[in-house]
Amino acid sequence: MRQICGALHWLYTLRMLKPLTMTDERAIHPVILCGGSGTRLWPVSRKTCPKPFLPLVGETTLFEQAVGRVAGHARFAAPIIVAGAAHGELITAQMHGGKHRLIVEPSARNTAPAIALAAALLPPDDIMLVCPSDHHIADEAAFRSAALAAAALAADDYLVSFGIAPDRPETGYGYIRRGEPLAGGYALAQFVEKPDLARAKDYLASGEYSWNGGIFAFRAGALLAELSAHRPAMAEAVREAVAKGRKDGSRFHPDADVFAAIEGDSIDYAVMENTARAAMVPADMGWSDIGNWAALHEALESDSDGNTVRGAQADLSDCRNVLAMSDGPRISAVGLEDVVIVVSDGEVLVTTRDGAQKVGKLPGASNQ
Amino acid sequence: MRQICGALHWLYTLRMLKPLTMTDERAIHPVILCGGSGTRLWPVSRKTCPKPFLPLVGETTLFEQAVGRVAGHARFAAPIIVAGAAHGELITAQMHGGKHRLIVEPSARNTAPAIALAAALLPPDDIMLVCPSDHHIADEAAFRSAALAAAALAADDYLVSFGIAPDRPETGYGYIRRGEPLAGGYALAQFVEKPDLARAKDYLASGEYSWNGGIFAFRAGALLAELSAHRPAMAEAVREAVAKGRKDGSRFHPDADVFAAIEGDSIDYAVMENTARAAMVPADMGWSDIGNWAALHEALESDSDGNTVRGAQADLSDCRNVLAMSDGPRISAVGLEDVVIVVSDGEVLVTTRDGAQKVGKLPGASNQ
Repeated sequence: MRQICGALHWLYTLRMLKPLTMTDERAIHPVILCGGSGTRLWPVSRKTCPKPFLPLVGETTLFEQAVGRVAGHARFAAPIIVAGAAHGELITAQMHGGKHRLIVEPSARNTAPAIALAAALLPPDDIMLVCPSDHHIADEAAFRSAALAAAALAADDYLVSFGIAPDRPETGYGYIRRGEPLAGGYALAQFVEKPDLARAKDYLASGEYSWNGGIFAFRAGALLAELSAHRPAMAEAVREAVAKGRKDGSRFHPDADVFAAIEGDSIDYAVMENTARAAMVPADMGWSDIGNWAALHEALESDSDGNTVRGAQADLSDCRNVLAMSDGPRISAVGLEDVVIVVSDGEVLVTTRDGAQKVGKLPGASNQ
Repeated sequence: MRQICGALHWLYTLRMLKPLTMTDERAIHPVILCGGSGTRLWPVSRKTCPKPFLPLVGETTLFEQAVGRVAGHARFAAPIIVAGAAHGELITAQMHGGKHRLIVEPSARNTAPAIALAAALLPPDDIMLVCPSDHHIADEAAFRSAALAAAALAADDYLVSFGIAPDRPETGYGYIRRGEPLAGGYALAQFVEKPDLARAKDYLASGEYSWNGGIFAFRAGALLAELSAHRPAMAEAVREAVAKGRKDGSRFHPDADVFAAIEGDSIDYAVMENTARAAMVPADMGWSDIGNWAALHEALESDSDGNTVRGAQADLSDCRNVLAMSDGPRISAVGLEDVVIVVSDGEVLVTTRDGAQKVGKLPGASNQ
């Protein structure tokens, strides 16, 4: 039997925000995940203020943008944020007084336990829309349209992944292949790990493959049922961590010892690749995971030489496709192509676009 | 008649340091030129502390090394430094109490007037060895050997240029072609302006060409006589500036108004390309003018990947032929090749080796 005593009052409060109905128009609960260290965007992204909480694209932070995308629309309930204790103050500040609930992860155990925590705290028939907090989405209308399509499939007990329309043969992402058409989407025929370039080109040419962007829609009960089927120990531990957890205002603290004992895994490995009811909705929405400095540069506006300057003054001479970003010292550059220069808080990073994938392994990034 | 009243006492004092003899063993007076802004080594080289006074190679400054090369040898008299007033304190500090005379240029008028000032202050039969203060010379024994050969030719009233043995088809230097052999050197057959790459390759292959390194030996009177023949107004103005000048301890101040009115020119254009008695001595001495960041990198020791780190910590990953130099902030670099990164006093410079020539034109360098 599901244990709900510890979470009961908190859950009740949450449901007051947006009454649940059992029609297709039922509320969608955004679940915004704030895990991940973002070390590949060091030295701007630091442990104390990682990637989601930085104004990397535009004037607002990626977290603020993630919250904004699911606000001001009748179908979306107040968001549930899942984050580590270290970032509670950042989240409070960046919610700007907006209604929300915060689930404080006692330890980082990857996405499957984080999502299951939210699922266990929601009524089983509620729909959850799982959104990373550190992605950029240029076309919010396209995002919402895909979210509604995904929610409709989730209400029919599909486990739905957003399939991001690929615009290049990217080797840094996993792919998903669409299968038979469903209403508003497709059955999900196949998951593919990060491919080599030749295969990525084939995927792009075929038109059948999308990037696996880490955005999902589930009925809460369906997600927990599939987790129980494929990761029973994890599912039980999450339920116990919730049952033994405690509420503190708008925050919920799962039991730390129980949660820490969970063997972490991603939602893809734990559930999506195993379930028989995986579906996907196509989403062509100007998506980027801002996964490294080169990806950030692509999401930013450039001048006619492909150069972008953010922050302090930069003088670029004979440069092409250069991103120069500084929190104070002037950057002067000559003759560079496809290079990123970042100056932040006493650290200077210079990397090629290709090298950007390795920034997280630098001593400065990994020994914070 | 040569006017010497203003400079008489100063000159007399100078000669006390090293008695003049009229044999081939006469003293050689090093004349160390400290003009030049060195903006191509910005942001480390600044107007207030330009290139000669910086420890760019090794632990001592280029100026200290220039002085050291002509110290501790019986043939060399105490040096005469020619510099602007702004750098007097730097020179006093970097002479470390060593005997010297300082000629304070009232204004910058290129090398011909600067050298002529020293010549006009020396007895006409004394030998002067003109040395830029901002070059690096790895092989000091080879330098001294060439200096003695040049001094012998100068005593025979040749105007002698050091011909630097070229080790690459450099297009950034002027070349000199050797002519008929002389004792210890050659007649200087031809001056060549900076060539294009094809001609530079021909010069290198021919073995007849050397780089014009800006190091010269003259009999003081011979230099002034040739200057009078080819730039009579300049020669007369220098004599007048000296005659109306004033001595202040070990410093000599030429008359500012007279000197400022001189039309500046290089010693090459004013004298060397016009005289019938130009000679050259070959010098293979690990010379570099440290003319830009790429040249400095070549003069420094590198690791097996060609990388060099100077100053603060730098973490270089997958980098080749990278110079990383910082006065504090850590530099982290990934995937770069043939790039120079310099962090100094709140400025960050990143340039390709090819771009290094243009650093002096950057706003930061030119608007100091």
